Amino acid sequence: MKILIINGPNLNLLGTREPGIYGNRSMENCLDTLRSRYPETGIEYFQSNHEGEIIDRLHATGFNDGYLGIVLNAGAYTHTSLAIADAISAISLPVIEVHISNVHSREEIRHRSMISGVCRGVIAGFGLDSYRLAIEALLPQK
Amino acid sequence: MKILIINGPNLNLLGTREPGIYGNRSMENCLDTLRSRYPETGIEYFQSNHEGEIIDRLHATGFNDGYLGIVLNAGAYTHTSLAIADAISAISLPVIEVHISNVHSREEIRHRSMISGVCRGVIAGFGLDSYRLAIEALLPQK
Amino acid sequence: MKILIINGPNLNLLGTREPGIYGNRSMENCLDTLRSRYPETGIEYFQSNHEGEIIDRLHATGFNDGYLGIVLNAGAYTHTSLAIADAISAISLPVIEVHISNVHSREEIRHRSMISGVCRGVIAGFGLDSYRLAIEALLPQK
Amino acid sequence: MKILIINGPNLNLLGTREPGIYGNRSMENCLDTLRSRYPETGIEYFQSNHEGEIIDRLHATGFNDGYLGIVLNAGAYTHTSLAIADAISAISLPVIEVHISNVHSREEIRHRSMISGVCRGVIAGFGLDSYRLAIEALLPQK
Amino acid sequence: MKILIINGPNLNLLGTREPGIYGNRSMENCLDTLRSRYPETGIEYFQSNHEGEIIDRLHATGFNDGYLGIVLNAGAYTHTSLAIADAISAISLPVIEVHISNVHSREEIRHRSMISGVCRGVIAGFGLDSYRLAIEALLPQK
Amino acid sequence: MKILIINGPNLNLLGTREPGIYGNRSMENCLDTLRSRYPETGIEYFQSNHEGEIIDRLHATGFNDGYLGIVLNAGAYTHTSLAIADAISAISLPVIEVHISNVHSREEIRHRSMISGVCRGVIAGFGLDSYRLAIEALLPQK
Amino acid sequence: MKILIINGPNLNLLGTREPGIYGNRSMENCLDTLRSRYPETGIEYFQSNHEGEIIDRLHATGFNDGYLGIVLNAGAYTHTSLAIADAISAISLPVIEVHISNVHSREEIRHRSMISGVCRGVIAGFGLDSYRLAIEALLPQK
Amino acid sequence: MKILIINGPNLNLLGTREPGIYGNRSMENCLDTLRSRYPETGIEYFQSNHEGEIIDRLHATGFNDGYLGIVLNAGAYTHTSLAIADAISAISLPVIEVHISNVHSREEIRHRSMISGVCRGVIAGFGLDSYRLAIEALLPQK
Amino acid sequence: MKILIINGPNLNLLGTREPGIYGNRSMENCLDTLRSRYPETGIEYFQSNHEGEIIDRLHATGFNDGYLGIVLNAGAYTHTSLAIADAISAISLPVIEVHISNVHSREEIRHRSMISGVCRGVIAGFGLDSYRLAIEALLPQK
Amino acid sequence: MKILIINGPNLNLLGTREPGIYGNRSMENCLDTLRSRYPETGIEYFQSNHEGEIIDRLHATGFNDGYLGIVLNAGAYTHTSLAIADAISAISLPVIEVHISNVHSREEIRHRSMISGVCRGVIAGFGLDSYRLAIEALLPQK
Amino acid sequence: MKILIINGPNLNLLGTREPGIYGNRSMENCLDTLRSRYPETGIEYFQSNHEGEIIDRLHATGFNDGYLGIVLNAGAYTHTSLAIADAISAISLPVIEVHISNVHSREEIRHRSMISGVCRGVIAGFGLDSYRLAIEALLPQK
Amino acid sequence: MKILIINGPNLNLLGTREPGIYGNRSMENCLDTLRSRYPETGIEYFQSNHEGEIIDRLHATGFNDGYLGIVLNAGAYTHTSLAIADAISAISLPVIEVHISNVHSREEIRHRSMISGVCRGVIAGFGLDSYRLAIEALLPQK
Repeated sequence: MKILIINGPNLNLLGTREPGIYGNRSMENCLDTLRSRYPETGIEYFQSNHEGEIIDRLHATGFNDGYLGIVLNAGAYTHTSLAIADAISAISLPVIEVHISNVHSREEIRHRSMISGVCRGVIAGFGLDSYRLAIEALLPQK
Repeated sequence: MKILIINGPNLNLLGTREPGIYGNRSMENCLDTLRSRYPETGIEYFQSNHEGEIIDRLHATGFNDGYLGIVLNAGAYTHTSLAIADAISAISLPVIEVHISNVHSREEIRHRSMISGVCRGVIAGFGLDSYRLAIEALLPQK
Repeated sequence: MKILIINGPNLNLLGTREPGIYGNRSMENCLDTLRSRYPETGIEYFQSNHEGEIIDRLHATGFNDGYLGIVLNAGAYTHTSLAIADAISAISLPVIEVHISNVHSREEIRHRSMISGVCRGVIAGFGLDSYRLAIEALLPQK
Repeated sequence: MKILIINGPNLNLLGTREPGIYGNRSMENCLDTLRSRYPETGIEYFQSNHEGEIIDRLHATGFNDGYLGIVLNAGAYTHTSLAIADAISAISLPVIEVHISNVHSREEIRHRSMISGVCRGVIAGFGLDSYRLAIEALLPQK
Repeated sequence: MKILIINGPNLNLLGTREPGIYGNRSMENCLDTLRSRYPETGIEYFQSNHEGEIIDRLHATGFNDGYLGIVLNAGAYTHTSLAIADAISAISLPVIEVHISNVHSREEIRHRSMISGVCRGVIAGFGLDSYRLAIEALLPQK
Repeated sequence: MKILIINGPNLNLLGTREPGIYGNRSMENCLDTLRSRYPETGIEYFQSNHEGEIIDRLHATGFNDGYLGIVLNAGAYTHTSLAIADAISAISLPVIEVHISNVHSREEIRHRSMISGVCRGVIAGFGLDSYRLAIEALLPQK
Repeated sequence: MKILIINGPNLNLLGTREPGIYGNRSMENCLDTLRSRYPETGIEYFQSNHEGEIIDRLHATGFNDGYLGIVLNAGAYTHTSLAIADAISAISLPVIEVHISNVHSREEIRHRSMISGVCRGVIAGFGLDSYRLAIEALLPQK
Repeated sequence: MKILIINGPNLNLLGTREPGIYGNRSMENCLDTLRSRYPETGIEYFQSNHEGEIIDRLHATGFNDGYLGIVLNAGAYTHTSLAIADAISAISLPVIEVHISNVHSREEIRHRSMISGVCRGVIAGFGLDSYRLAIEALLPQK
Repeated sequence: MKILIINGPNLNLLGTREPGIYGNRSMENCLDTLRSRYPETGIEYFQSNHEGEIIDRLHATGFNDGYLGIVLNAGAYTHTSLAIADAISAISLPVIEVHISNVHSREEIRHRSMISGVCRGVIAGFGLDSYRLAIEALLPQK
Repeated sequence: MKILIINGPNLNLLGTREPGIYGNRSMENCLDTLRSRYPETGIEYFQSNHEGEIIDRLHATGFNDGYLGIVLNAGAYTHTSLAIADAISAISLPVIEVHISNVHSREEIRHRSMISGVCRGVIAGFGLDSYRLAIEALLPQK
Repeated sequence: MKILIINGPNLNLLGTREPGIYGNRSMENCLDTLRSRYPETGIEYFQSNHEGEIIDRLHATGFNDGYLGIVLNAGAYTHTSLAIADAISAISLPVIEVHISNVHSREEIRHRSMISGVCRGVIAGFGLDSYRLAIEALLPQK
Repeated sequence: MKILIINGPNLNLLGTREPGIYGNRSMENCLDTLRSRYPETGIEYFQSNHEGEIIDRLHATGFNDGYLGIVLNAGAYTHTSLAIADAISAISLPVIEVHISNVHSREEIRHRSMISGVCRGVIAGFGLDSYRLAIEALLPQK
């Protein structure tokens, strides 16, 4: 079974961008760790700065039952994109919202998520470890 | 004379997506019906999940006087895109805002439209028949 | 089959009142055109400046299955009357909300409708042609 | 001694209107029960969909000391009519606000009452039994 | 030349109603004083508790150039009636908004007027003398 | 059958506290009257200034079908306690919200109740008689 | 007996400033007309662009019973100065708030007055004639 | 090393309370599963309906470096208790906020958390599995 | 004569908790200093993290005229507890609200106090010296 | 060492102005008492109704280390003057905000202070004794 | 041709005041640089902490066509003074709003400008270089 | 050294689009003028209607120290795009926000910028000359 991780705008800069907030570990490094930890799960990765491409990708994968679900860090679009929320509602796979930083201890605009209500659950504030926790949430419990 | 129908994000999933809200008829079926009903009107169709592509298309067609006007269902961008509103203001063709569902009986965020004020008019809540009514509104009255 | 058109406050002045907003065609002229266009549909007309009379009329007709539905331009009561909204919810006929002007390009108080959520759909901004479109929406599609 | 019950807009449809909210017992049936329960109290009844007629009736009865008070279910006007609130302030009889449904578990606009502050008290949510409780509240305690 | 004074809801109770706010002089007494002070001006008077009747009367007189203008104390409708505001916009005679009490030192809901913006001017807080000042404002200055 | 009356914070001071608002009759006196009026109903009484103790008590009694229901005057917690609202939702007995004073004619913070929406009904403004009316509402109607 | 007229900021430019809003008649001309119309009333005039000087002047005159009252057009300070409102509350003479333009048909910030609630009354929208009406309001009625 | 799980108000009813929202598995069952899954971690459990007791317990454990951290489901206090937020800020152990249900798809008051900003991270919406994920987040990564 | 000092939630951690905000002096040290400075005044001290216990204590002491008054630092309950505000209104002793930090230079939620309006006065921002100033305010002036 | 007391608008009327709120003792009397109580402290006094003069005076004294600090009762400017707040931030002496009345039990606009956040502390509600407490707060503790 | 630079409250302290925000260069130094850079332009300078004096100076220079325009840094009055905005509207010279700091990255109250809408343009955030850019904007382009 | 100018949505229509607001000069013409004025500065230009492409371009250039900075007219995205704001925060080059029109004299939604706070500075309202001023701001001062 596979899991798709989608990262939204500016997350291509992880490791470079505002390390005080996002840490200095790159997403590639994070993916390597995850893939060796969960060798039986196919972990796909997609990043885009384009709201439309994120929607396209949610559609492309979202009805495919070869996936356990989708882990979505929508970055700033979390707070502004009703269109991504609608895409999440439209597809059949569960989507888990993750954030690297604790969005609730940052500016007020980041306290409101347009997508939380249509995701299965939310995981925020654990640095890159948030992705691992989201995978844990999707994997069937033994 | 031609009419351009533009559908925004997630409307490519019509017939599949949340049938309780959007019905289970596809847009292709709707277009077939419209084209046979209005055989003398060239009905073009464009769908995109990308805000920028919708703007590009409004620009591309919006100054062409071979068109009677544009029928726009901007989906979720209706409620968040000032950029699409600006594109509508900038072009010379009339634009009619349509919605399949009655947006006013859904969540509060869907009650506010960023584009209604710069469209010629609004038609909402008639299912796919909203598109026919918009075409009726654009066709010259005999 | 019949259709009832109800016009709310100040719409008795159509043709006289603020022609820059409402045009200078009278409602009588509009009704004549509609009746000759739809000769098989009995088009009834009722106008009142009284919120209570509009409610009374919605009750009187609203359970009569000799009607396809009601076309309601509630004028300013659109924005202030929860009582009319309750009447629309209470009756069994579908009600279509229409507006002559594009209420969304006018003052902010006219952007909020108390009745849209309980109507079948909304048509706004097409001048007196809004009434024709509402009738089109009620007539059974062949 | 007498008690006047005033019912506001759409309450003439009780028993018919939205039985999921208002039940399917008619007001006439309710009045019969009340009159046989309180045979020594003259229970008058007035219903109108017109805000102005409710005010007129409050004025007509509101200074008459042959009445113990007025039981008012102002329906939707509860939430929009400052004029009825002013009428209640102006008269000398106590007015008790009643609601059949629990307005607080319905839409937000029904959570705010324009008249509660000038009524003697409020009784809401007990179905048609709310009227009996209001009468109990007006009757002198032995 | 004539002047029409329109009084809105609850103002039929002047002299009786909340004398701490409105004084204990009746409107009839006020009209007598005004008619003897301005013997050459025909001072008509209309009072109604019905929003619709106030609109009807504004329409009936509002295009008649035998009148200098209309003095309107809309009472509580001042704060809730967009329909009356629309009627004022629709007619050609100037309308002067008056209030007996200083609405700005009362509850907050009375600080906002729906009609001030479409009236020629506003006079508030001078007791029944507000009517005289409004007439002074309408009379041509020598 | 039994009925539990729960009084929240500061209501232990009834008769002493702000008699202009709450009257000068003590709760003990009120309970005596109620018990002699309804001798067949076991009227239990619990008062606490602790939000947690009120929740504990709602849990302890709230699933006991030897009770007709619970009469709750949550005092100031009415306006601030989502936890009490959750307790009311969780239990199976009906809860009736009562207030001694008319909370709607007091400060604005007292106009919003966190618990009304999950109670069966609300009775407010009748002094200590509010408790009798709540018992009347719970007792089966003959 | 005397009357003091105080004009606030930018009103020294009357006749010059935005004639579309304020007309092109100067304050001097207005004062001449008033003084010849009311020859027995000493009409003093004070203008300042300084909030503090307006307060100083209110204090200097406000306890002097040789004056009937003060006519105050506080200009923009109407909408921002709590300090002037406090000065009006502190003095014993009545103050009448006047505005040349109809502030309610201008930008929203001009709809809220900080001083109306502590003035005796408000007169707005009659051009420079507003000052005459304010004097009429202060003069004892014969 | 130990981990303390604190559950707030009404969570003692898990398995009983609103199973549509919270499921029908009890907390005891959940703790058994966690303890067998993480046999080397001492999992302590504390539940209280009292805001003050939750604070007391946070203080009692919050400076003890024999614990990896605290998992806190503050229930309704999440949305109303600044005092618990202050306790979390005051102690030295990390606190992880968990919720069983997806609070963001429930009523609006549950969308705002008073404590998220001072917790290390937030995990919501995974049913009782949220507790396991929080423990995963606290355990040192190998 | 005695004075009661009540400290609310988390203030038991003074000297330990967030010394950047609250300093590193303990409350015990502060009390010692106060008692030696005011040897003739009996200074009692009560701390609780429980809203209900603070109310209980206000009741227990609040009618005792052997006390000059109560000094209350309600901590976070300052901003959320209407129940404590009601307790202050109910008792007869004066209560002085104190804060160690300048709450107005902290997060916005700490700018609004639910209790200031019912206290005799407010002293905030002087560190532990705020308690001395409150005692000074209660002691009779010679 | 010296202390400067600055009083803002309308405080020159102390003893005269609204004695129900501000008492009937004059500021001169208060200063006499303070000077005899603190004979070793030079107590300067400055009053102005001009926002600009208060700023000028804050600048003139605010860098002078012959002063312990400044006691500022900014009157109504407390609630409207960001410029005074900026002046307080700019100078090096500590400023203590004082109010004679308890601003929190007055109108809502007086609940918000623009300057509290940049003052060292706030003392409000103790009548003229507030000034003494502010001096106590500035004097070095023995 | 001349240009007038007006600096508002607290800007006399430039170089001294909060150098972290405003830098440590004085305005005199800035003016010297500007005058040597633009030797053919008469650069006048006026600073005041008084709102009224700023208005007076805008009036005094604002109709003088020997000036290219006015560069205005209104300091804190930017955010509170409608009176200065009115003065800018009233005069004929263009006014350019400048700020030394980036007001948008400071407190929220500094994000809203009362004067931007009536200025020709806005320049903010470039330190003292903002003044040079404003002069560049006023100088005729070759 | 180079400077990158980025124009956002609908700015490809400059010279065509709403000339009353944006003038009728094209961007090409503006760039020609700038390049001849600053021949030693490489002025690059990028326009896109796609939010994602603007982010991509900010990333591509934003770490390149061969550039002095970026001039960004984000058009409507200024008011809606937190993602662009995040991109500006993430890169190392300074970004200057420019607007052709004075956004503060247009609709309210254009008064709030999501990006101003993370830009170095803002220049708005000078027509196409705003771009020149931004370049001036980036060029090192001699």
